[in-house]
Amino acid sequence: MDLKDFNHYLITPKQNNELAKVDSHPWEDIPSCKLEAGEELDRLRKQIADLQQRFFIDRRKKFLIVLQGMDTSGKNSTIRHVFKGVNPQGVHVSSFDKPTNHELAHDYLWRVHQCAPRDGEIMIFDRSHYEDVLAVRVNKLKPESVWRKRFRHINDFEQLLADEDTLILKLFLHIDSETQRERLQNRLDVPMKNWKFDPSDLTARKFWNRYEVAYEEVFEKTSTPHAPWYLIPSSKKWARNLLVARLVVAYLNELRLSYPKVDFDPATIEIT
Amino acid sequence: MDLKDFNHYLITPKQNNELAKVDSHPWEDIPSCKLEAGEELDRLRKQIADLQQRFFIDRRKKFLIVLQGMDTSGKNSTIRHVFKGVNPQGVHVSSFDKPTNHELAHDYLWRVHQCAPRDGEIMIFDRSHYEDVLAVRVNKLKPESVWRKRFRHINDFEQLLADEDTLILKLFLHIDSETQRERLQNRLDVPMKNWKFDPSDLTARKFWNRYEVAYEEVFEKTSTPHAPWYLIPSSKKWARNLLVARLVVAYLNELRLSYPKVDFDPATIEIT
Repeated sequence: MDLKDFNHYLITPKQNNELAKVDSHPWEDIPSCKLEAGEELDRLRKQIADLQQRFFIDRRKKFLIVLQGMDTSGKNSTIRHVFKGVNPQGVHVSSFDKPTNHELAHDYLWRVHQCAPRDGEIMIFDRSHYEDVLAVRVNKLKPESVWRKRFRHINDFEQLLADEDTLILKLFLHIDSETQRERLQNRLDVPMKNWKFDPSDLTARKFWNRYEVAYEEVFEKTSTPHAPWYLIPSSKKWARNLLVARLVVAYLNELRLSYPKVDFDPATIEIT
Repeated sequence: MDLKDFNHYLITPKQNNELAKVDSHPWEDIPSCKLEAGEELDRLRKQIADLQQRFFIDRRKKFLIVLQGMDTSGKNSTIRHVFKGVNPQGVHVSSFDKPTNHELAHDYLWRVHQCAPRDGEIMIFDRSHYEDVLAVRVNKLKPESVWRKRFRHINDFEQLLADEDTLILKLFLHIDSETQRERLQNRLDVPMKNWKFDPSDLTARKFWNRYEVAYEEVFEKTSTPHAPWYLIPSSKKWARNLLVARLVVAYLNELRLSYPKVDFDPATIEIT
């Protein structure tokens, strides 16, 4: 699959991104059956492992994958299912929870920039600098005069990374409110899942509409050619994983990575 | 002295900044005698120590001082003479030598951003991200298509820091080529100073004109209202120190820092 096959998932700044109206269930290009999707995912994982190894050896580019989504949209689960099988030497995950006091004493991109990938590295952001215009806005942690300037900072920051050889792929795992309700309830109903429940998720859930508005402005302001946002319908977990895996493969395939050429003739060298 | 008293040292983007034509010897607002300058510097140092303590306690702003200049212009010596007497808990120096391989594997602002100051901190950059459009350009370490984009990155980066409550003061310690010749020769002639001599300084000296051109473009592109460049005539060391100390005092005075107000009446509290 080519990257252009994902154009209908691409969020363009000008389109109407009213999230509530976008279907969060699998679209027609996903197999209707979980088993079939699982077989394809297995094949894709092998491709990802191979492409990642070449990317790691090539060391000419950096790759940043940003994962955002409402609570229970499955950021952690996506990482686990799509990236198991890769060489952990070259793939890392940075989780951006509530900033510490030490982090808060610096500009908000300080802790984020530290985690930017290096040559040959695939870095996955589990949440990201986007929380500084999402959670910060919704919870009124900073006045609008402060967070509104951040759209520009974020675009500038991503432009810097892109100019310095970073591929950037931003994924919004889209679920609807009913799906979140079911998943949160499930965390309460199933004893083995109780640990996943955090009462503060209920507060965030109350702000569902505010988050939607905040996300819509994020997409409008920060989906750029060098750092596009893709909307991943995520109400079915197996469809979400499959779609993300397909997209990662398409992204890495664009690079036409081969193993580095050598400037000697191996046939002329004898190891004694 | 008010900050506006330094306007003739301020480098505005539009003015003709042909460095070779700018006098690197003290201008008329500096005492003609070293002794008199020394007494004033002593007084200024006490002021800096006091202002820095208030800045540290206040913790509402960050302060970044960038020092650039040709070899032997006295970056280290300026730091030593102007900042001795401050509380080292709140003043730090980051020196940006040749990047390591680990640093080179990231975007060039990665190592710089890590050293950006936190609330209440005065951070002095001994060399800086400007080397990525100076040394990199002069020594052709990257093609022009790469380093030319960096002027914009740098302005964006400094805008981010400024928007997030960082004062930025950029100082160019200006010497002429003859002064550099004398100082380098002195490092060879005086055994106690031999350690300061680095044969690679001779290579940089050969590129004097190229550095001048590169600096002139730096000033043209990156002297902004929120992160201005000041030209410090530095062929007389004592005049250079005095001028930098005056400017730092003027900068901190602008903040009108007082000790934090308390929201209780100390007279009503009895310690038993």
